[in-house]
Amino acid sequence: MAMSYEDPYLIISSDCHAGLPTEEYRPYLESRFHGAFDDFLAGRQARREAMTRLGVRNEDFAHKWFSDHEEGLRGGWDHAQRVKELDGDGVAAEVVFPDADAVDSQTAAPFGVGLGLSGDQDPELGMAGAKAHNRWLAEFVAHDPARHCGVALLPVTADPREVVAEIHRAKESGLGALMIPSMWVDKAPYHDRRYDPVWAAAAETGMPVVTHSGAAPREEYGDHLGIYVSEVTWWPARPLWFLLWSGVFERHPGLRFGVAESGCWWLPNLLWFMDRLYLGAHGGKKLSPFAELRRPPSEYLDRQVFVCATNTKRRELAQRYEIGVDNILWGSDFPHPEGTWPNTRNWLRSTFHDIPVGETRRMLGLAAAEVFGFDVRKLDPIARRIGPTPADLGQPADQGAVEASWARSRETGRHWLTGGDFPVMGPAAGPDAGVAP
Amino acid sequence: MAMSYEDPYLIISSDCHAGLPTEEYRPYLESRFHGAFDDFLAGRQARREAMTRLGVRNEDFAHKWFSDHEEGLRGGWDHAQRVKELDGDGVAAEVVFPDADAVDSQTAAPFGVGLGLSGDQDPELGMAGAKAHNRWLAEFVAHDPARHCGVALLPVTADPREVVAEIHRAKESGLGALMIPSMWVDKAPYHDRRYDPVWAAAAETGMPVVTHSGAAPREEYGDHLGIYVSEVTWWPARPLWFLLWSGVFERHPGLRFGVAESGCWWLPNLLWFMDRLYLGAHGGKKLSPFAELRRPPSEYLDRQVFVCATNTKRRELAQRYEIGVDNILWGSDFPHPEGTWPNTRNWLRSTFHDIPVGETRRMLGLAAAEVFGFDVRKLDPIARRIGPTPADLGQPADQGAVEASWARSRETGRHWLTGGDFPVMGPAAGPDAGVAP
Repeated sequence: MAMSYEDPYLIISSDCHAGLPTEEYRPYLESRFHGAFDDFLAGRQARREAMTRLGVRNEDFAHKWFSDHEEGLRGGWDHAQRVKELDGDGVAAEVVFPDADAVDSQTAAPFGVGLGLSGDQDPELGMAGAKAHNRWLAEFVAHDPARHCGVALLPVTADPREVVAEIHRAKESGLGALMIPSMWVDKAPYHDRRYDPVWAAAAETGMPVVTHSGAAPREEYGDHLGIYVSEVTWWPARPLWFLLWSGVFERHPGLRFGVAESGCWWLPNLLWFMDRLYLGAHGGKKLSPFAELRRPPSEYLDRQVFVCATNTKRRELAQRYEIGVDNILWGSDFPHPEGTWPNTRNWLRSTFHDIPVGETRRMLGLAAAEVFGFDVRKLDPIARRIGPTPADLGQPADQGAVEASWARSRETGRHWLTGGDFPVMGPAAGPDAGVAP
Repeated sequence: MAMSYEDPYLIISSDCHAGLPTEEYRPYLESRFHGAFDDFLAGRQARREAMTRLGVRNEDFAHKWFSDHEEGLRGGWDHAQRVKELDGDGVAAEVVFPDADAVDSQTAAPFGVGLGLSGDQDPELGMAGAKAHNRWLAEFVAHDPARHCGVALLPVTADPREVVAEIHRAKESGLGALMIPSMWVDKAPYHDRRYDPVWAAAAETGMPVVTHSGAAPREEYGDHLGIYVSEVTWWPARPLWFLLWSGVFERHPGLRFGVAESGCWWLPNLLWFMDRLYLGAHGGKKLSPFAELRRPPSEYLDRQVFVCATNTKRRELAQRYEIGVDNILWGSDFPHPEGTWPNTRNWLRSTFHDIPVGETRRMLGLAAAEVFGFDVRKLDPIARRIGPTPADLGQPADQGAVEASWARSRETGRHWLTGGDFPVMGPAAGPDAGVAP
């Protein structure tokens, strides 16, 4: 669809969260796991205390957060409330990850298979907990399949036959993507050929595979929150280079892989580093060739990789021509407090006001529609009803000048491929920059 | 010393390597470890095969490398030859890490305590191997203490009393810095208070503590070299945020910590991320304060942290105002093939030609002199004899124009502290940039 300046944005949040209050998962769990579920519920207080000790949980903040947002937070599991909150934020559609409650973990999926899903999860309990969440989530998104893409939890380190079966079951139930653990821990790393049937099934069903920040080797951090936050985004990014260098993207060209809520600031350096390695950096002289790849890493990235970049930072937007505009999928992180809800409209204005409208349309929705298979024709009437316009975002009607201000950055792009020495990260300096050429 | 445009550069390589052919370490090793040393020597072939399988070692390249550079490579352990090579490269002084032979590991320190030094090293053998290398290295640098700063190997996860004793012994023997393992593996992470006496001793003796790339969890990589190379620089950087957030730099203001041969491209994003976290990012609302710190992470960095950035890339130089010009210590990596030797002079010209001379002086030598305690007055005559001049590096005599071209980047600096939205990474666009303001 050709769009004009006046058209409202079709906004898709590539990173939202939903989950039942934990107790309510019981009917979705096979009855033979009910005893283990009681044990899991009994351990909640100890887990909460550990989170408080690390500083991830803060009593005072939690109290204020829940009293300020009591009604809206029910949107974590109540569909009618959720739609109100999405409409209020101008969000036409969303990708739904687990764990609605990031403050107090009251909606943790059974056996800790939510955002903390980890490779060393007990395989039987892990698959049982994942299926329980997946069953509930399929019911939840069925309220309005055009607006919600449900992300199935996939304990991918379990028996590959069971994992593949769950992919097909999830697809048939109406879910649209697959979340795998960021960390394999003591199981086979993701370069292992044992996962090939899993990647093949994901490609075949058209379900993108995603990691999401959450898991990390917390036992190494003591009670130092800063350590946790400094590297918690590295662990979900890590599978990217394991898949890439072991040829998974070459062998499975239909596979799409994404990293969620881990920023995208790390991607330009990684691409620069990996492309140069592949294309024969000086340091590569003593190294063997990379036989499992047929093209530079950035080509696989553009073809098959994306980032659910959540509340994208201005610094990251400055790097979008290195990352690839189409690889950046914005997200609101509803209903998490580190996200943009319920102030998304203001947040979009302060973040995107000087970014070209055409690129903004891609990052705020159209790229996500392609990756996750949303039907934009079905979403169009919703977007026209609730979506902010470029003018609402403070974007000038004279887009020629905006485009021109970014021309040097756009033309330089990935400078290591375009022949430039240096990145060009911001718009052209105005006449007041006071710099001799 | 005030310098003029005509003065040659005083060049200090912050990352060079020296080590004996492994068998020759025997006399430096206490005799009770000679049996274990024989076992270690017997395992060399298996280790070489593992390196070949991963692709770190390449038979054809190794053959050519050794035949092309036979004489110069003896500089890895032969002092007279070494000085010839340093002079040829224009390098007045150097910081000396272990493992001269990165191609075939023929100079591996006993028991694998060289660049692969790791936290799960057997404590007794580790300390024995480290002491053997440290004894030899002290003799080696004694040939010309003004030109060489020897880095003692420090298996820091061993008994803290022994570790502290080895720091003092190394200092008295004439060594000037301490290399600790990048990875603690199954031992206490570096936030642990058990290391406080070690950091105190390092500060007291004025010996900077350094990690160096090499160790990585190779058992996770299969035979995929790309995975190894993509993350091998992350592991030596990791201790930085463990030390920082646990308050080590606050408690030990005299401690200096550096990361060697791991690039510096990752540092701007890390600083931006950590400063924002500390200064109260939106996502921090639900998080506890950082009681062990009294100032933003970047202030500790400028006060106590440095990077031995080895053969610095142009992309990294573009980020020097975010990293901090004084925090970047160039290195030649002699005698490793991924370094600049024996072509350092040409390499410097192609890398630094448009960088201001004053900043180049800091990055090529003066910053390293401060960190590692070189006496620049003793080095000055050597620099005047062998050092390239700014004109040799292609740097124009009109430095006013060069400085001006970088003014916007320099003034923006760490934009998250100076109020800017975006990084400014390169020099001002010339008149041919063709971009409307």
